[in-house]
Amino acid sequence: MKKIQCDVLVIGGGPAGGVSAVTAKMNYPHKEILVVREHEVQLVPCAIPYVFGETLGCSEKDVASCAMAEEMGIATLVGKVKNVDTQKKIAYLNEDEIHFDKLIFATGSTPFVHASLEHALDLEGVFTISKNKDFIDKLDAYAKDKEEIVVVGSGFIGVEVAVEFATKGKNVTVIGGSKHILENAFDGELGNVAEEHMEKVGVTYIGEDRVVEVIDKNGDNVVNAVKLKSGKIIDTQIVILATGYKPNTTLAQNAGVSLGHYQGIWVDEYMRTANHDIFAVGDCSARRDFITKEPSKVMLASTSSAEGRVAGSSLYGIHYLKGFSGTIAIFSTMIQEIAFSSAGVTQAQAKRAGIDVVVGSFSGVNRHPATIPDAQEQFVKLVAMRNGGQIIGGQIIGGKETGEMINLIGMIIESHFDIYKVMSMQVATQPKLTAAPTSYPVVMAAHIIAQKIHKGV
Amino acid sequence: MKKIQCDVLVIGGGPAGGVSAVTAKMNYPHKEILVVREHEVQLVPCAIPYVFGETLGCSEKDVASCAMAEEMGIATLVGKVKNVDTQKKIAYLNEDEIHFDKLIFATGSTPFVHASLEHALDLEGVFTISKNKDFIDKLDAYAKDKEEIVVVGSGFIGVEVAVEFATKGKNVTVIGGSKHILENAFDGELGNVAEEHMEKVGVTYIGEDRVVEVIDKNGDNVVNAVKLKSGKIIDTQIVILATGYKPNTTLAQNAGVSLGHYQGIWVDEYMRTANHDIFAVGDCSARRDFITKEPSKVMLASTSSAEGRVAGSSLYGIHYLKGFSGTIAIFSTMIQEIAFSSAGVTQAQAKRAGIDVVVGSFSGVNRHPATIPDAQEQFVKLVAMRNGGQIIGGQIIGGKETGEMINLIGMIIESHFDIYKVMSMQVATQPKLTAAPTSYPVVMAAHIIAQKIHKGV
Repeated sequence: MKKIQCDVLVIGGGPAGGVSAVTAKMNYPHKEILVVREHEVQLVPCAIPYVFGETLGCSEKDVASCAMAEEMGIATLVGKVKNVDTQKKIAYLNEDEIHFDKLIFATGSTPFVHASLEHALDLEGVFTISKNKDFIDKLDAYAKDKEEIVVVGSGFIGVEVAVEFATKGKNVTVIGGSKHILENAFDGELGNVAEEHMEKVGVTYIGEDRVVEVIDKNGDNVVNAVKLKSGKIIDTQIVILATGYKPNTTLAQNAGVSLGHYQGIWVDEYMRTANHDIFAVGDCSARRDFITKEPSKVMLASTSSAEGRVAGSSLYGIHYLKGFSGTIAIFSTMIQEIAFSSAGVTQAQAKRAGIDVVVGSFSGVNRHPATIPDAQEQFVKLVAMRNGGQIIGGQIIGGKETGEMINLIGMIIESHFDIYKVMSMQVATQPKLTAAPTSYPVVMAAHIIAQKIHKGV
Repeated sequence: MKKIQCDVLVIGGGPAGGVSAVTAKMNYPHKEILVVREHEVQLVPCAIPYVFGETLGCSEKDVASCAMAEEMGIATLVGKVKNVDTQKKIAYLNEDEIHFDKLIFATGSTPFVHASLEHALDLEGVFTISKNKDFIDKLDAYAKDKEEIVVVGSGFIGVEVAVEFATKGKNVTVIGGSKHILENAFDGELGNVAEEHMEKVGVTYIGEDRVVEVIDKNGDNVVNAVKLKSGKIIDTQIVILATGYKPNTTLAQNAGVSLGHYQGIWVDEYMRTANHDIFAVGDCSARRDFITKEPSKVMLASTSSAEGRVAGSSLYGIHYLKGFSGTIAIFSTMIQEIAFSSAGVTQAQAKRAGIDVVVGSFSGVNRHPATIPDAQEQFVKLVAMRNGGQIIGGQIIGGKETGEMINLIGMIIESHFDIYKVMSMQVATQPKLTAAPTSYPVVMAAHIIAQKIHKGV
């Protein structure tokens, strides 16, 4: 038995754990920081879908760099922590003891599979999108000589994986419960556009349906079809279950740490558990929505990174005030050359949460004049409170600039800015980079909302 | 003599005038809005440099659309207003009288030429970058069979024009007074990068020098060289004076409207002159800096558009609170495939203004992982108040996403956000669109500043 001593122990080497460690070292340079992670090689989670298509083409191109952590003098161990004693402040790794002063759980998430389909994972040809390199390589290799793929789940992981396989010439069908794809992030009129682009790449979408059975006709333990609730049977060689993720909390739970909603580890705004020496960040922590304050299942590396920064700064007292409370579910995806971004609540979500909102949409182009050679259509929708005018949601379709434009909208939402603040905001516009100053879409959408509120419609 | 009646008269059809008119009509749909502009065809001012290169290739592709104004029922007259009687509320256009209730001066700006070089404009081959289509066409035609071009002025118009001509194979030299190009927007370490990229395209930069004489060796009224303060003589067939613009205020001045600094029309925060029926917006209005509150010469269509929105909403009373006071000088430019963006004050400007600042820079890539095929370097510098930590300036070098990323920084500056707010902000990150969540450059630069302030360095 070896006794390892550190000041701050981070369990998990994904984005949340990595950022926690780096931030801790920046804030407390004299503390010993130790990261324990399960896998020798850590994938960049958001880019996993691109391993399967032509964008990256292999998982070796999707390996996260640990260079920054190493340069900063952060120690790393590869292994699985079996148990944690939060009273004695010891984590047990194989035969070794790690003694810590502060502990950060960053244990991430694993694919969620509906109980009725769990047994299907025993069949050859049935996969989930795990964040484990070996697993991803296995799916990639298995798919090489197959033609037919069914993706169950129409969230962004399902859609991105489907599109990547389709660009390699595979015959891909996505099956989702919602009318349009990406329903958690986009209202129907945008989800519909995303769906059209996905179908242009050759992916078929079957919506408002669900898989009730994964079939092995020949009894040889190899999948060859799925049966849907509607009765449809779809022949396939591969089934990918992209039906979300669940927090990895067994370790924390066994250590007596309390869980919150959706089985995430309960934490306060500074990512502390009830025991202020124990923190949790990233997908393993319980989240709630920034606007509705309801429990949230949103799992994004960007949110995890923001949490890691807060935890890493708050280990030995509150270093600065945290700017937000709850996830704004801000993210982007791409379908071929079209980017789709969303932040905050959609109009449909607002309605379900009982929020009286007014929406404004503006359609233009992402260059000015529109004759600039690479000009693409750009569409912005904003969702605002009728009372107060605060912007609580935004959705964009456009070119690659969309990825940063949504961060502007994110800041607007996070700061509770109203449409009036946005209407007079100063923006930079450049012919080759943005829409025209006279019709900058975020400003125009805010303007349209102001008109509606003014007229009482 | 014709008597024309309107409620709101806008003099000028550029971005400021156009946005004023559209906003006025949105806010006051029952009012008659009339725009009087001097030219039948109005160019999109920011894209004028692209007329000369391959991006647009001709001015016909740079014509501003009036479709939105026409659809909304905004009337337009082409002509030059000779005089305005602000007491009688009459503008005189040729033989006609335009009676108005509210007047918005949006008369724009014309090229500024140093007094010592004014006579040079009489020589054949000497041009300014006017916003008049005929003038732009004349330069474009004249340049067709010429090889040698000298651009005087290293601001963004000078640089963009130089780069466009260089991509057409011309031999272009830019002459500027500052050590590096774009000095008003970028600190030396960024200006240096811009300069290197400009030189890669084949443009030569001569800095810390100035043109003292434009030479017509043969006495045939055709330019063939310039002489610099340093004594250098540079042979050339074309001289383009891109030495800034001055407000067009003769009309307003003759009407007895007071001017402010740098000869712009004095206006309050709502773009009203002392007479609240008379407004001024855009380049013809006097501006000051958002941070230093000193008079500003910044002229940008985006700022003009923001002012137009404020004026158009405030014609009959203050409709909503204006969100800002002073220009944050937010703009972007491109040199080939590299984008350069800036907002607020530079480190050098802060120093000159006596502001105690701390800066943070972060260098990374605009995709994640860096193996994503179109990944480009991305560099962000933030300038923050040592006391308080508010971010008062930002500069970016990167890919096309830079054009929207600077708008996030603009909002941060305009809202007086501090580094702590930025450090915990939630951003969307996507492999094909942005930097990694773990090292989003705006957050990282803020983090570096926080460390420096904390350590007192």
